[in-house]
Amino acid sequence: MAATKLQTSIRLRATPYKSRVERLGVSDFSIVNHTLLPKGFGDTQQNDYVHLKTHVQLWDVGCQRQVELRGVDAAHLAQLMTPRDLTNGKVGQCFYAPMVDEFGGMLNDPVILKLAEDHFWFSIADSDVLLWAKALAYALKLDVAVVEPDVWPLAVQGPKSEDLLVRVFGEEIREIGFFRFRRLPFKERLLPVARSGYSKQGGFEIYLDDSSLGEALWDACWDAGAGLSLRPGCPNLIERIEGGLVSYGNEMTRENNPLECGMEKYCQLDGSIEFIGLSALQKIQKQGVQQKIRGVIFDGGPCPPCSRPWPLKVNNDEVGKLSSTIWSPRFNANVGLGMVSKMHWSCGTEVTVISEDGLRRSGRVTSLPMSDNS
Amino acid sequence: MAATKLQTSIRLRATPYKSRVERLGVSDFSIVNHTLLPKGFGDTQQNDYVHLKTHVQLWDVGCQRQVELRGVDAAHLAQLMTPRDLTNGKVGQCFYAPMVDEFGGMLNDPVILKLAEDHFWFSIADSDVLLWAKALAYALKLDVAVVEPDVWPLAVQGPKSEDLLVRVFGEEIREIGFFRFRRLPFKERLLPVARSGYSKQGGFEIYLDDSSLGEALWDACWDAGAGLSLRPGCPNLIERIEGGLVSYGNEMTRENNPLECGMEKYCQLDGSIEFIGLSALQKIQKQGVQQKIRGVIFDGGPCPPCSRPWPLKVNNDEVGKLSSTIWSPRFNANVGLGMVSKMHWSCGTEVTVISEDGLRRSGRVTSLPMSDNS
Repeated sequence: MAATKLQTSIRLRATPYKSRVERLGVSDFSIVNHTLLPKGFGDTQQNDYVHLKTHVQLWDVGCQRQVELRGVDAAHLAQLMTPRDLTNGKVGQCFYAPMVDEFGGMLNDPVILKLAEDHFWFSIADSDVLLWAKALAYALKLDVAVVEPDVWPLAVQGPKSEDLLVRVFGEEIREIGFFRFRRLPFKERLLPVARSGYSKQGGFEIYLDDSSLGEALWDACWDAGAGLSLRPGCPNLIERIEGGLVSYGNEMTRENNPLECGMEKYCQLDGSIEFIGLSALQKIQKQGVQQKIRGVIFDGGPCPPCSRPWPLKVNNDEVGKLSSTIWSPRFNANVGLGMVSKMHWSCGTEVTVISEDGLRRSGRVTSLPMSDNS
Repeated sequence: MAATKLQTSIRLRATPYKSRVERLGVSDFSIVNHTLLPKGFGDTQQNDYVHLKTHVQLWDVGCQRQVELRGVDAAHLAQLMTPRDLTNGKVGQCFYAPMVDEFGGMLNDPVILKLAEDHFWFSIADSDVLLWAKALAYALKLDVAVVEPDVWPLAVQGPKSEDLLVRVFGEEIREIGFFRFRRLPFKERLLPVARSGYSKQGGFEIYLDDSSLGEALWDACWDAGAGLSLRPGCPNLIERIEGGLVSYGNEMTRENNPLECGMEKYCQLDGSIEFIGLSALQKIQKQGVQQKIRGVIFDGGPCPPCSRPWPLKVNNDEVGKLSSTIWSPRFNANVGLGMVSKMHWSCGTEVTVISEDGLRRSGRVTSLPMSDNS
């Protein structure tokens, strides 16, 4: 598309960090959960990628809205909504968790925070999980309050993240384990701070639970950045694809099940837990899936952005589709993610990518995350 | 915001009309239901407004996604989801219908099409009604299939709409009543064509139920435009505000009930029908609402776009907030929509608008739709 100006309105909600990303020259946005997601600050994805892998970035990911379950039946409802076994989860843990409907179709892939035995946040990708959870709670007469709280995640990503946040929250930051969170003090509040985030470069997500403190939190992190080459940033498409971080709405939709999406390890299908979609997933598992998400590395010079699925072909037969693509400086080639059919999903399989500029590009299937010998 | 470039991805879905709006120079987009909504073609809202009120426009409103209910319990589920009495609805009728949760909070305000006694489409505003409906059907064990079908509305709006569509579908177009639809032939299909749309200038919405025919349908309408000054267009903010057409996510959210939103006449609260939220709305009705959506006409020269709620003040007390605003050529003043508290919602009440450029602007409350003596 030549011109893609976003016409804003109140419906496309601002985050509490908006004034700060504007001041820092935000140039691009996406919309996730009816909320603005900064997607660029005037530099190339390639430069942002190098920076993210070297230094530290502050990301306004307030669009990762929370669906809060609280009450006697909160744990029951949380488990009903995911194939991931939450039964032995501890307070302070985060769980990456597929959510599926009764047919096993993906509804979202949140990170679930267990705040207390009767208190959970689902930190969601782009679909209104709130409506799904509210309707279940209502119709099943569960004793649980389901709301969207005033919580706005701020991510700190990159190898220097820990050093940055030690300056804000103190040495306790270093003790937070991967996919664990602790409540750390900020301005009279105790904010859950998790070692997590939508990159593979290490980092944290701060769950600010009071939007009136957004600018103060941003400023505290920003001001702590002296000497660390801190920059504003955002999820980087190159790093995400290379790292095999799938995106709901791009690599997968309701048409897909979690077994196709590399989430087998998050699906407890032995019947020891009950959730919506269990029997559908058991059946799919028994039959075996016919496609899986794979990486593809392909040449032909920097490709255009992927605005519709690109066919993957072997001998002119369509064997899959790419859903996200970009030029990778690391591989000196394009990288992509997409569904590849069973007969051709082995790593190293040679495929032809038909990009939307009409070119036929030679590529090969890779495992995920992509590695230097991919 | 200075720069607001939209970074696209497959997640922000294209409609079947995309190639055509691109060819015609689409310059601005919004996102509704995870789908691109063209919002401008390079001209000012003021010029588009004059054109819409004089001629005819073709609007890509494929983002008005459909939630289909089909099966034995479809009518039961449809009624559960809205306070509007659907019991005596006839096949071929459209119903503007608030949807509420168990607290009476607005979830959406779709147009419901009754396609058959056991077959409904909810043509939705910006929230995932599909997840709400699916969860209710699942948890209440209803015999109904809930899906998002391959349906992509195309709107024809403006005073010459009927003349345009007669050229495409024949004279039967003239017989379609307001908020009625007929199935009319196009390329071997029978498409529901309704006299409806998100303007007050008259027009139709064509419910294309096969995305592969998107370009053919657009072209058929476009080619029929000779001599009618046909242009591509989109919902026009000036016309929408003057006409009192509220927007879910802007004027109202889950925080609001339909009685605040001018939808009393669509709420059957006498207990003759059962729906989710009935008792909550009965209680609200008994207590009386404390605020309502009103128009405000205000001066001070063309105002900036409204990206956050603007306070309305009387004697320095906040008495409401504007959620949508723009300069109106018709009133030679700014117009806005927003919630106004009970003590000050009478038409003619003088208020001060605090716009986000910091100006204090004199205004007065108006009824909706705004009239020339507003």
